[in-house]
Amino acid sequence: MGTTRLLNVHVQKYSTHAPSGSDKKHDTDTKAVSSYWGVTPPSLTKVDGSAWKWNCFRPWEAYEADTTIDVKKHHNPVTWNDKIAFGVVQALKYPTYLYFKKKHIHHAVLLETVAAVPGMVGGMLLHAKSLRRFEQSGGWIKALLEEAENERTHLMTFIDVYKSKWHERALVFAVQGVFFNAYFLAYLASPKLAHRITGYLEEEAVNSYTEFLNDLEKGVMEDIPAPAIAIDYWCLPQNSTLKDAIRVIRADEAHHRDLNHYASDIQCQGHELKEYPAPIGYH
Amino acid sequence: MGTTRLLNVHVQKYSTHAPSGSDKKHDTDTKAVSSYWGVTPPSLTKVDGSAWKWNCFRPWEAYEADTTIDVKKHHNPVTWNDKIAFGVVQALKYPTYLYFKKKHIHHAVLLETVAAVPGMVGGMLLHAKSLRRFEQSGGWIKALLEEAENERTHLMTFIDVYKSKWHERALVFAVQGVFFNAYFLAYLASPKLAHRITGYLEEEAVNSYTEFLNDLEKGVMEDIPAPAIAIDYWCLPQNSTLKDAIRVIRADEAHHRDLNHYASDIQCQGHELKEYPAPIGYH
Repeated sequence: MGTTRLLNVHVQKYSTHAPSGSDKKHDTDTKAVSSYWGVTPPSLTKVDGSAWKWNCFRPWEAYEADTTIDVKKHHNPVTWNDKIAFGVVQALKYPTYLYFKKKHIHHAVLLETVAAVPGMVGGMLLHAKSLRRFEQSGGWIKALLEEAENERTHLMTFIDVYKSKWHERALVFAVQGVFFNAYFLAYLASPKLAHRITGYLEEEAVNSYTEFLNDLEKGVMEDIPAPAIAIDYWCLPQNSTLKDAIRVIRADEAHHRDLNHYASDIQCQGHELKEYPAPIGYH
Repeated sequence: MGTTRLLNVHVQKYSTHAPSGSDKKHDTDTKAVSSYWGVTPPSLTKVDGSAWKWNCFRPWEAYEADTTIDVKKHHNPVTWNDKIAFGVVQALKYPTYLYFKKKHIHHAVLLETVAAVPGMVGGMLLHAKSLRRFEQSGGWIKALLEEAENERTHLMTFIDVYKSKWHERALVFAVQGVFFNAYFLAYLASPKLAHRITGYLEEEAVNSYTEFLNDLEKGVMEDIPAPAIAIDYWCLPQNSTLKDAIRVIRADEAHHRDLNHYASDIQCQGHELKEYPAPIGYH
């Protein structure tokens, strides 16, 4: 459970410097366009004064993961709702293990492209509902969109140490096409079923990261330095390794597991999500 | 242009207190569910020590709007892309003015239920693209989702001082059904067209808030105290009125106008959004 950390960063007045990595022509274009609309990205610095290099999250969104999680926590499927959700995830799990076997990073990449979908779909549908009904969501829109962003950052961590093959990219493309639409329909039809599916999906994510960690610890897989994005996102020490990154990613997944089972429980008890303030910043 | 303010708030360790407004039975349910999953919302306090009452945004997301905007800024439609976008918005604008006439708050409510859609749709599609292509979005996912959240907070401000009629709720329902899907398809087909449409939509939002302000200033409409959510979201003085809230809301719309025209310009020049760091926190 991560408390949100307010880092001591300097949010400077938006400066007019051109984005990095751009060539001369590009620079001129940027300036011409941005000077007309007056839109320029913020120039952020780290506590040590060096430039902040990520656009996908800001220094004060970095956090120290709470790794004191129960990796075995499981929601026992009792009702039909639970059993359907559990069955769906089990049916997805076995072919995935068969396909990837011990290729943990490849497995993790596919997992994250799937795990980043439910939060976005749920957040979007609750946003539309909030607008339609003129009512607050109780913070659940933000909590679910944060989950999606967090999962996307996991993916961004892996792609730094991963070279994808064409058939893996094709698989991700196909899986997203099916899963995005299927989850969208499931959430429309039954949000409590959808959250339960995500809860079970996250239980499996925790399991697969535990296997990943075991193989790193046993030396079956060689450990490597942690990607720079992981060090900045989870406030890890500079000499951290992939093992440290996997440990915090697994903690995030455990928190998403709890949040989604909780969201399903609320609705299974006949309540609406908005009646229960969402645990924002919970990962 | 708002610099993000880091307020001096106390983010306590997640406490176990039950959500406010719950009855005794509800309390027991909450505790039973949350204690099993260990999920409880954060307990936040304002700088003065009083409890933070909003779940839809956190104290450090409040900001002081930069109201030094050019309310007349306009993108001259030159290309076919521009002309189609301009035509779409003009076609939507006239019936809206005919329907609402001088009922500014009713008009504003409909406007906000529409204006909160593009950011969510764009953010979602860029998120899916980022996952599918294993690439960073350059911060545009976050920037667009922030726009959607900002527009939703405008709506939450108005519903505090607004009593909707059944035919207005029916209208919002119908408009959302059509606009959400139409904008989704437009963004899939041509993001530069979609961002241009939003740019023009925001130009009209600025115009309609200017008329609203004029009528408040002329005394055609009675000014009333600003809703509590507006005071906390835009860090307004306690004695602020609706006029002050409209002024900051108009500034937000002007910033969204600039951001969306900028996003369209980038793509009209043959670049991808991800090449240009997004102006996160820009409203």
